[in-house]
Amino acid sequence: MSLYADQRYRAELAASRAGALVTREPLDGISVPQLVHPDPFLALIDLVEMFYPKPSARKGVDPLASVSPDARLAEDVAILPFATLEAGVTIGARSVVHPGVFLGKDVSIGEDCVLWPNVVIRESCRIGNRVILHPGAVVGADGFGFARREGKFLKIRHVGTVVIEDDVEIGANATIDRGTLGRTLIRSGVKIDNLVHIAHNVEIGRDSAMAAQVGISGSTIVGERVLMGGQVGLVDHLTIGDDAVLIAQSGVIGNVSEKAVVSGYPARPHREVLKIAAELRGLARLRKQIGELERELRSRARGTSDRDEKPEKPDP
Amino acid sequence: MSLYADQRYRAELAASRAGALVTREPLDGISVPQLVHPDPFLALIDLVEMFYPKPSARKGVDPLASVSPDARLAEDVAILPFATLEAGVTIGARSVVHPGVFLGKDVSIGEDCVLWPNVVIRESCRIGNRVILHPGAVVGADGFGFARREGKFLKIRHVGTVVIEDDVEIGANATIDRGTLGRTLIRSGVKIDNLVHIAHNVEIGRDSAMAAQVGISGSTIVGERVLMGGQVGLVDHLTIGDDAVLIAQSGVIGNVSEKAVVSGYPARPHREVLKIAAELRGLARLRKQIGELERELRSRARGTSDRDEKPEKPDP
Amino acid sequence: MSLYADQRYRAELAASRAGALVTREPLDGISVPQLVHPDPFLALIDLVEMFYPKPSARKGVDPLASVSPDARLAEDVAILPFATLEAGVTIGARSVVHPGVFLGKDVSIGEDCVLWPNVVIRESCRIGNRVILHPGAVVGADGFGFARREGKFLKIRHVGTVVIEDDVEIGANATIDRGTLGRTLIRSGVKIDNLVHIAHNVEIGRDSAMAAQVGISGSTIVGERVLMGGQVGLVDHLTIGDDAVLIAQSGVIGNVSEKAVVSGYPARPHREVLKIAAELRGLARLRKQIGELERELRSRARGTSDRDEKPEKPDP
Repeated sequence: MSLYADQRYRAELAASRAGALVTREPLDGISVPQLVHPDPFLALIDLVEMFYPKPSARKGVDPLASVSPDARLAEDVAILPFATLEAGVTIGARSVVHPGVFLGKDVSIGEDCVLWPNVVIRESCRIGNRVILHPGAVVGADGFGFARREGKFLKIRHVGTVVIEDDVEIGANATIDRGTLGRTLIRSGVKIDNLVHIAHNVEIGRDSAMAAQVGISGSTIVGERVLMGGQVGLVDHLTIGDDAVLIAQSGVIGNVSEKAVVSGYPARPHREVLKIAAELRGLARLRKQIGELERELRSRARGTSDRDEKPEKPDP
Repeated sequence: MSLYADQRYRAELAASRAGALVTREPLDGISVPQLVHPDPFLALIDLVEMFYPKPSARKGVDPLASVSPDARLAEDVAILPFATLEAGVTIGARSVVHPGVFLGKDVSIGEDCVLWPNVVIRESCRIGNRVILHPGAVVGADGFGFARREGKFLKIRHVGTVVIEDDVEIGANATIDRGTLGRTLIRSGVKIDNLVHIAHNVEIGRDSAMAAQVGISGSTIVGERVLMGGQVGLVDHLTIGDDAVLIAQSGVIGNVSEKAVVSGYPARPHREVLKIAAELRGLARLRKQIGELERELRSRARGTSDRDEKPEKPDP
Repeated sequence: MSLYADQRYRAELAASRAGALVTREPLDGISVPQLVHPDPFLALIDLVEMFYPKPSARKGVDPLASVSPDARLAEDVAILPFATLEAGVTIGARSVVHPGVFLGKDVSIGEDCVLWPNVVIRESCRIGNRVILHPGAVVGADGFGFARREGKFLKIRHVGTVVIEDDVEIGANATIDRGTLGRTLIRSGVKIDNLVHIAHNVEIGRDSAMAAQVGISGSTIVGERVLMGGQVGLVDHLTIGDDAVLIAQSGVIGNVSEKAVVSGYPARPHREVLKIAAELRGLARLRKQIGELERELRSRARGTSDRDEKPEKPDP
């Protein structure tokens, strides 16, 4: 089964060995069955459910897990080998805690969550319902905050927390630091890809998405439905407006307004960046033009001045 | 023992406290023994084997590991404490599974592999022979793929897999996502450094190498013997030709042809980038040149026009 | 409690719901109590200790840990579930080893260290006193070093080590590779943020700091009190002078001198980069200016040459 949602890949279809095709409009010259749907990605979600039934849920606490007698587990949870649940941890109904997961003191996990192997959530952090944490994700490590005295760094102990609301997904080996005093806040519906870094006291608005390796510095506030491409970086204490788009690898050092589309370093409106890039490619030509202008002006000057103004050399 | 393979570091040699030297050509003024070899790096491989014997291989299943009765282990494997092998896992001869490793249902590992601590490989992924996975590497997490309806993201369940062929090395805390439907494919001989991100359905051709923190977006196809410097980013659905070189921090947003050398954002042929960088440094000078041209032209215009065209001030 | 240390955030204070304020100078129009201190960050350190007492230290070896009989543990250490200590490991007084930590053969850990969950330290690496390793940090994985013969990579076995001195902090999921032959060296007081990559044989001088996602290539030497913003990348074999500042996302491909402030790719003095950025924004204007000059020159040429030099068209 293959998905065809973008005109750009029309040429690749011929070479595809897919057994069936999901497409927005019927296509000519395709020998495999076509499933026509106005939104192929939505159709795909249903098709996957049909063709790839979910494995039956695991339940129970593995004898090789380390669960504090003080932890509270709702019905139908699964706690797998080598998971550690410290005192005061609560796990909502039907959530699955895979091997090697660490949940610090008083961490609370909502219902229907999946914590993949080796996820770490430090003390007091709160996770909503239907949250997915991919392998190796770290929630609630200390923020990178120090006082500096005579060139040496003094650690500011981070006593804040992380709050992750419902329906959030955090990528493999991503890191979400706890607040210095207050909280780092990931609002509901946010999707965070692998190896993303979210610093202390950041807030991410509802339904925003960050592709892999994005880095967001301390106390920056990101609006709702903001989209960030891979490897985007934001400095601290910024405000990013709702529905803004930060194109891959942008280096954002100033606030971004609602619905703005920015790129480059330092990030500017993308249209401006494209214009400058075009100008840059013409820069050598520009330099030549100026050289020619100078020569022309000089020869012209010589042509007129030789006769009536300030001859550089005496006429022989 | 020290290695001298590059003229650039000639000056550093004098200061070196190495007890011996491997060098391409005999060097004057060096007091320590010199081992001359046409390829110092190759010589180093043999020297390390001679001077640093490998520790004797560990064998057997630790009683603190969690191994499904349904897993199949070849001879002479080592399964260390707190490793989890779910049902249907197969491990080839002489492979070592370090503490904290998670192998999901039906994962297959070839012969002579080393899985360092806390590696995670999710269900159904297949690993070839002589593959090294460094600590914390994650193989087979869900790709970052969503359908969007009314501003909200709907998860596309990722039912594809990851296939890693022979002689591949994956760096510490790197992440290789599973395909949406098909597979993410890392061909034989590929070397991937730490904290690299490879998205769903990417294919990497034989003997390519990626330095640390590279990010490759979904469905991009990388050729053979491609070299990428650190922090390079590639958008989705690209094709990178064989033997291409992507210089560190490049932001690649278009296809790259065979043997091309690109850099910058958006990535362009490196020679062009160097030229533009040089032009940029001359930009202020260019602006001055133009200013002078304007002044000269204006004064010249005044010089001639004063007499015969449109005098701005009446002659006294 | 909130911290006010920067004029930039004066406007935000009004909206703050903080119950008290630490400030450098007394502020008007603020209704909550103000604690005035010449260095608010220093004051914060003391305030946190007062208001958030540290939890009482844990002690002892959990029965679910895997500790070699050959490991040496000082008094008052805590070894928590699913930690692995191989033969020859030494742990200094009062250090805490959290769940899922792996310490390879002969690793030595100093006094008062905290190794958060799932930290991996491979064989022979040495950690000083009061070092904090955040969750998922990997110390001592093989460097990314290969010999290349006929397009194929041959692994250089890495037999060096990592030495981390006192008072160092390493971020979550950061990776510090071991030396090829010698050592990778992190000097005392260095602070490394999440997801940073430090390659083989790098040396970082005392009291330097690197924000998240920085990548430093092999054998580069960083001076003392150097500051690097997020996502900075450095190529191999560079020397960075003491007190240099590398601004976020810089791509550094040449040595940087003492106290220099650099940015951009390729990294240049930041003042120069700002100038060029300003020039770039004026590039379109520059192009127009040149066009006007050309037109003026041409019309002027026609004006004079029509009469006395080379008329293009015969006068009617």
